[in-house]
Amino acid sequence: MLHAVILAGGSGTRFWPLSREKMPKQLLHILGDKSMLAMTVDRVVSLVPEEQIWTVTTRSQAGEIKREFSNQGYTKIRILEEPAGRNTAAAIGLAAVQILRDDPEGIMIVLPADHYIEDKARFLDLLSVGREVAQAKWLVTLGITPTHPETGYGYIRRGKSIDLFGPNDLEVEAFKVAQFTEKPNPEVAEEYMRAGDYFWNSGIFLWQANHFLEEMQNFLPEHHKGLFEVVEALGDPKPDLERAKEIYESFEAISVDYGIMESSKRVAMLSAEVGWSDVGSWAALKGIMENNKDGNVIKGNVLTVDTHRSVLYAQDRLIAAMGLEDMVVVDTDDALLICPEKESQHVKGIVGQLIKEGREEAVTHRKVPKPWGAYKVLDRGEAYQLKWLDVFPGERLSLQSHEHRAEHWIVVAGRATVTLDGRIFTVEQGEHIHIPRQSTHRIENQGSEKLRMIEIQTGDYLGEDDITRYEDDYGRSS
Amino acid sequence: MLHAVILAGGSGTRFWPLSREKMPKQLLHILGDKSMLAMTVDRVVSLVPEEQIWTVTTRSQAGEIKREFSNQGYTKIRILEEPAGRNTAAAIGLAAVQILRDDPEGIMIVLPADHYIEDKARFLDLLSVGREVAQAKWLVTLGITPTHPETGYGYIRRGKSIDLFGPNDLEVEAFKVAQFTEKPNPEVAEEYMRAGDYFWNSGIFLWQANHFLEEMQNFLPEHHKGLFEVVEALGDPKPDLERAKEIYESFEAISVDYGIMESSKRVAMLSAEVGWSDVGSWAALKGIMENNKDGNVIKGNVLTVDTHRSVLYAQDRLIAAMGLEDMVVVDTDDALLICPEKESQHVKGIVGQLIKEGREEAVTHRKVPKPWGAYKVLDRGEAYQLKWLDVFPGERLSLQSHEHRAEHWIVVAGRATVTLDGRIFTVEQGEHIHIPRQSTHRIENQGSEKLRMIEIQTGDYLGEDDITRYEDDYGRSS
Repeated sequence: MLHAVILAGGSGTRFWPLSREKMPKQLLHILGDKSMLAMTVDRVVSLVPEEQIWTVTTRSQAGEIKREFSNQGYTKIRILEEPAGRNTAAAIGLAAVQILRDDPEGIMIVLPADHYIEDKARFLDLLSVGREVAQAKWLVTLGITPTHPETGYGYIRRGKSIDLFGPNDLEVEAFKVAQFTEKPNPEVAEEYMRAGDYFWNSGIFLWQANHFLEEMQNFLPEHHKGLFEVVEALGDPKPDLERAKEIYESFEAISVDYGIMESSKRVAMLSAEVGWSDVGSWAALKGIMENNKDGNVIKGNVLTVDTHRSVLYAQDRLIAAMGLEDMVVVDTDDALLICPEKESQHVKGIVGQLIKEGREEAVTHRKVPKPWGAYKVLDRGEAYQLKWLDVFPGERLSLQSHEHRAEHWIVVAGRATVTLDGRIFTVEQGEHIHIPRQSTHRIENQGSEKLRMIEIQTGDYLGEDDITRYEDDYGRSS
Repeated sequence: MLHAVILAGGSGTRFWPLSREKMPKQLLHILGDKSMLAMTVDRVVSLVPEEQIWTVTTRSQAGEIKREFSNQGYTKIRILEEPAGRNTAAAIGLAAVQILRDDPEGIMIVLPADHYIEDKARFLDLLSVGREVAQAKWLVTLGITPTHPETGYGYIRRGKSIDLFGPNDLEVEAFKVAQFTEKPNPEVAEEYMRAGDYFWNSGIFLWQANHFLEEMQNFLPEHHKGLFEVVEALGDPKPDLERAKEIYESFEAISVDYGIMESSKRVAMLSAEVGWSDVGSWAALKGIMENNKDGNVIKGNVLTVDTHRSVLYAQDRLIAAMGLEDMVVVDTDDALLICPEKESQHVKGIVGQLIKEGREEAVTHRKVPKPWGAYKVLDRGEAYQLKWLDVFPGERLSLQSHEHRAEHWIVVAGRATVTLDGRIFTVEQGEHIHIPRQSTHRIENQGSEKLRMIEIQTGDYLGEDDITRYEDDYGRSS
């Protein structure tokens, strides 16, 4: 059977300030109404049934990814939480071992969660052919036909043609890979373009899970052994998370390219012209999104005067841009980025500096997604804090109490069911309820519409840690 | 006696988005902790007692100007409200007629409210000498020694020296003015620099009120006659505002330069080297404010990477600027401006476009100053609106009621005295009170500390016009 393995563990600092540690690139809606992750699923779901789509991610992103899939109507996609971050060889290996257990002959398509592909039909054709090549025991990679002498990617040099099945209807050619190369300097990139047999390394792969694991045993034997132990430890009836983490953390953090592909003698490449982009920076959007008559990519509340070839992302606030050329401007509730397009690949540096200073703007947005909905801090003062909280239909917050702060809640949309010191109250739109200090309380949305409440916290101490939870965010008692 | 007349009627669109129709340039704190208006008063108050300082402004700005003076401890400055906007000849004439009534020999210094002067001591020396020249029946203007071939200002060509008192200790020379000129083109501006006898027209004047009015009678006789009638109409015991407005509106809107100075034969100039600037654009701040080691002028929450010679004004939100050169970035709660420094003089165009579109961002800030304090809209939804309201000690809002909306108030700082349908409640910090639809209500701060309340409006209709006021904002019954 065909399986898809989506790698969704990236932090995506390159799209700061829209991306944050807790809101990585693959969850952003930068390319339209959907997240890049959802677009990745959409692209393959006609070929791979939902039950055979696996998403490998981190513990901290798993909740938000589940929510995103559920919002998009995907309820059967499997989510694998990596015990720690150890680069792509381990992440892909983890999925391979899981797939092998279900489906010893299974073929896996490995897909980064945050790439863009314009020509979806051609992409599916390539995957169909790739599947055949994988069945013949090749590790297949998609090599993207270069459109310019890019210095930001690794390249693949193709070798001899592999003729497995004669000329196919789809006119896809497979080649043995002669060589993987590092990111070239500009002169070398120009040479690669002229040579015509160099392709961009897309990070999209196809192979049989068991064949991949054989190659892993050859070239990364510790990974191979350890991953089976990890899956064992994570298995029923008694998952041993500590043990799994301990083993996983012992792995070298190595990419699948360095760890396996460059060593294997059985690597094939399909040459792909599909309008691929790894969407590596804000500037990359100009090549993907619709440009207006001035060559600008604009989202939100933006006024331009004499502004050209710029990327301008607004939220609520108005951006007035005058006389800009080739600039990137991205505005969010709490942080704003301005840089020339050519600098936008260096946004990481800013994020690094913010992390060093311990600043929130690197980690979360003012609007914080939660399993039960979301909240946003609207205002803070010396002895108060103001939020809205949205609770999804059927969801509830944990039962909790605060030692130091009291809260006022006003329902402004929907209807709240409030538990307060054991008694249950229904609070209708426009109504208020007071939550005294030290009382146990819980909000619940038993209705079918969104509940929005305004929360005003008052007290001398309003720290995040002034909370006693009697259950977790998923409603499980603790 | 010496009087100062401060012209404070300007709207100052050039400093958008910090300046708004209801928050003009002279009230901004762009140059430090004080408004430019307060800095203008500070500059002359050692020479002119408060009671002899007159501020000419518009009706709509008068309240805010009073508040600003009171915040700065100036309680005796007189405020003249122009019945309409009719340029500087009428505004200065209005002050001259008022001064003449109090002080027939009075000398007036005319000062724009929004200029910057670095060398205050030298400036006072110039005013002292100017006073002597004015007493000898000259209309005196300060001519600024040009520091570069500026094309944005009118110039004054000096004529023969006026020797009233022989060489003075202050080494100030007075000259007869030979000619006023229009703004020059770059070649002409270069010539003026080389010639050495051209000076910038600063708009700072000194003269006897009665002498100025004589010249007005000569060159703007309708203004002259009308202004005496206006002051008559505005006088006790029964001010006739309608009549005053009708006459004032009939005046030609002409500047004092065109209307009087260019025609008079008795115009003198003092050459002034005082570090003067009319602070005409965001870019001008680089010449006035402290530049950091990268040549940037920075205010607020700003992170720069490889950014030089730029003006960066933040408020709460972080501005991350990377790779910028000679740019202007100004962020406010609801609008953000980004443009190259050389375009910053064209901000007016953006404001014009916003006004055409009927957008709030041209008119007010989210934080709206009021005679009783201020409020700020924090969030809006389909059926709710969220504000904080600050009420100054001793102040109160008007008694009012709303047909369509109910309100919840939570006190988060200070203590509120709330009148609700005739009953009076004290609401302490952390407490809540509900204001039902159609109830009459008022908030009052009887304490000595600031009162801050959170107001949550709920209802189907939340328009600004859903209010019945039983008195005005100054507490006067209506």
